[in-house]
Amino acid sequence: MNRPQNIKGMRDHLPEAMILRQYILNTLIAAFERHGFEPLQTPLIEYAATLEGKIGDEERLIYRFETHGGDSVALRYDQTVPLARVVGQYQGKLTFPWRRYAVGHSYRGERPARGRYREFLQADIDIVGSASPVADAEIIATLTDALASLGFRGFRTLLNHRQILGGIARVSGLDERAAGGVYRAIDKLDKVGLEGVREELLRSGVAGDAADRILTLIRINGAPHDVLEELSERLSHDDQAIRALENLRAIIARLNEMGVPDERYALSPSLARGLSYYTGSVFESVVDTPPMGSLLGGGRYDELVGMFAGRSIPTVGLAFGIERLHDVMEELGMGPGHKTVSQVYVTIFGPETAGASLGLAGELRAAGLNVETALEVGDKLGKQMKYADTKGIPIVLVLGPDEITRDEVVVKDLRSGAQQSVARSAVVAQLRAAF
Amino acid sequence: MNRPQNIKGMRDHLPEAMILRQYILNTLIAAFERHGFEPLQTPLIEYAATLEGKIGDEERLIYRFETHGGDSVALRYDQTVPLARVVGQYQGKLTFPWRRYAVGHSYRGERPARGRYREFLQADIDIVGSASPVADAEIIATLTDALASLGFRGFRTLLNHRQILGGIARVSGLDERAAGGVYRAIDKLDKVGLEGVREELLRSGVAGDAADRILTLIRINGAPHDVLEELSERLSHDDQAIRALENLRAIIARLNEMGVPDERYALSPSLARGLSYYTGSVFESVVDTPPMGSLLGGGRYDELVGMFAGRSIPTVGLAFGIERLHDVMEELGMGPGHKTVSQVYVTIFGPETAGASLGLAGELRAAGLNVETALEVGDKLGKQMKYADTKGIPIVLVLGPDEITRDEVVVKDLRSGAQQSVARSAVVAQLRAAF
Repeated sequence: MNRPQNIKGMRDHLPEAMILRQYILNTLIAAFERHGFEPLQTPLIEYAATLEGKIGDEERLIYRFETHGGDSVALRYDQTVPLARVVGQYQGKLTFPWRRYAVGHSYRGERPARGRYREFLQADIDIVGSASPVADAEIIATLTDALASLGFRGFRTLLNHRQILGGIARVSGLDERAAGGVYRAIDKLDKVGLEGVREELLRSGVAGDAADRILTLIRINGAPHDVLEELSERLSHDDQAIRALENLRAIIARLNEMGVPDERYALSPSLARGLSYYTGSVFESVVDTPPMGSLLGGGRYDELVGMFAGRSIPTVGLAFGIERLHDVMEELGMGPGHKTVSQVYVTIFGPETAGASLGLAGELRAAGLNVETALEVGDKLGKQMKYADTKGIPIVLVLGPDEITRDEVVVKDLRSGAQQSVARSAVVAQLRAAF
Repeated sequence: MNRPQNIKGMRDHLPEAMILRQYILNTLIAAFERHGFEPLQTPLIEYAATLEGKIGDEERLIYRFETHGGDSVALRYDQTVPLARVVGQYQGKLTFPWRRYAVGHSYRGERPARGRYREFLQADIDIVGSASPVADAEIIATLTDALASLGFRGFRTLLNHRQILGGIARVSGLDERAAGGVYRAIDKLDKVGLEGVREELLRSGVAGDAADRILTLIRINGAPHDVLEELSERLSHDDQAIRALENLRAIIARLNEMGVPDERYALSPSLARGLSYYTGSVFESVVDTPPMGSLLGGGRYDELVGMFAGRSIPTVGLAFGIERLHDVMEELGMGPGHKTVSQVYVTIFGPETAGASLGLAGELRAAGLNVETALEVGDKLGKQMKYADTKGIPIVLVLGPDEITRDEVVVKDLRSGAQQSVARSAVVAQLRAAF
């Protein structure tokens, strides 16, 4: 027998990690549903033809294989192309605009590294079939609600628009073709700093004075209203940029009406986002305190989702990277903080009293408590206590012959060590009230 | 572009189906946690060597491929072999007995058919590291709680033991080698009837008088106590069968102590269960009213889980087949019965009042309600109403200029058609109380 081993870059999640992970998913799903998003689930496997030709270079990372029937298939690398397939396949059954969420794994044959996995879980929300800025604002309101519900405090969502970046490139004297290099250079600002971006721009063929104009524009910051004003002045000759600024102004007005607090978002003309398919707003949520970097990103992409339907279907959305959220929350000690799911451990004193213990466990469960019982009727009480303590179960109950005679249960709190005798008839209600 | 299509035998779940599916999973998970089971998640992909040589003939159904690094890998076909791998890999980090649950997809390259899928979701519970009949009883108590929580009423769990079947074969004059054919023949009783089983037995080389003895024994039925008595008499010369009957007697006594109702289980000496790895109790839950057949099965398998750890690790468990549960519950009209997740749809009367509508939506969400808003500020109210009705959202709110002047909101219940004006200051509390 080989040494048992999980595949590199694909993680096992033992119970303590899974408890945090489920807390993250349940919290996100509740926030998604509060904002009217409906669940969708598609298979992890798609026909290879469905996935091919959509992500450029990264396509080489796709896991492919043949089915027994000879079909060429592949593991999905995101949940967006499957969304596009579903929109194409079920057009007649869906009602638009459609708010859908999807929680599922995707796969990329990356070289594993810290924070980079070959199997990764994502939670996507998208509003399909609306070009309205209310839709962009709803996505941002949802992510704000979701991050706050997870317990994040010092976070902000940075907002930009592809056509502001486009305008910046154009007013700096560059044509559309050069703009791709500009976005890629700007996207590295966080990593390489202003001087690094300047070098990158020069390397991609941008002249020195144009690079300086770009750097001046992407450094504009301040309150959203002020940033919008300054950019409107500086980009006043670029119609597309002016429309983009109007669009951001409308999104921000809607955020305000929806009650999303001011401090939760900011305009950032340097935000590029790597993906080339964005056509409108782009955004990214960052944790400032403690400084943990980017948690998620998204934006408007009006061309991708309609590709199987054969028409433009305006869409705005984002993906929560659960691996990243999980790692960050684990590092910050966030989440429910339980080592296990059980709240109560019911010991078995001996063969004569096992029935009384198992009956009590049944009553506690009927009251909604999470209860583990001892299994071996011959184990010493000390061993059972040690087991519960090792597992991190907070409350242990003892129901031995003495307790049964006195119609009592011993309730021991393993966190504090406190121990008390409680009337058998009162113990279920008392424990239910305690959790 | 190809016609968009999901892979045959792998299902897309659109929102209405997903809402039922999530209800099933959430209900099962809550029942599992009430019984102290902890979550485990492993990757969908394992090294091929981990999965090979464990399931006999079925191995040809495994989906295999090579990673970019040249590793030979495969999609898991169940969650039991990955559990065994985890037990072998993390022995030092786990505390036994270990109650773990796992919810995840598995894959088999079957020929798709009604109720048979190539991607299927399973919810497994196992107690690893205990040979105690309390463990068997806990598994059965958990499944009883889970099925009742899902809303099943007329269901029963049939119980048997591998060594009762073994005893039946032996007292009928057959040796261990022939016993496999006997189990397979008996396993078909539901499908082919007694006469069919007899023919099957004869075909597999069992003599006519031995076949008749077997048929007499597997037809024994009645109250658990009576079945145990009769089998004890008839198998009294077979030590292993007698120990098996003792074991079942203990399991049933524990079920009774745990408060599992009598009518929820029965002894069935004809229950064989296909899988060859069972070593002790076997069980299967069936829905009698309406007659829907088997929902799930499980049992004790003391040799499999320890295979990577290099020792016997007694284990008892089962898998809920979510595809089957989903299909059955859909057919019976069970579950939450919602078409969508949203409880309230907030219309937008026009550009002037959009802010008031979005603000109201924000308040409703802060109160915990699931709320969808209109997105296009120019859409006619009739179109918005029709959208909400098509989606199946029960409540629609209208907040036009007249309502704003009167400080009211129009609340329309699309289920009844009833419409009322509610004070703006009271509407959030009123709707919260209604859901």
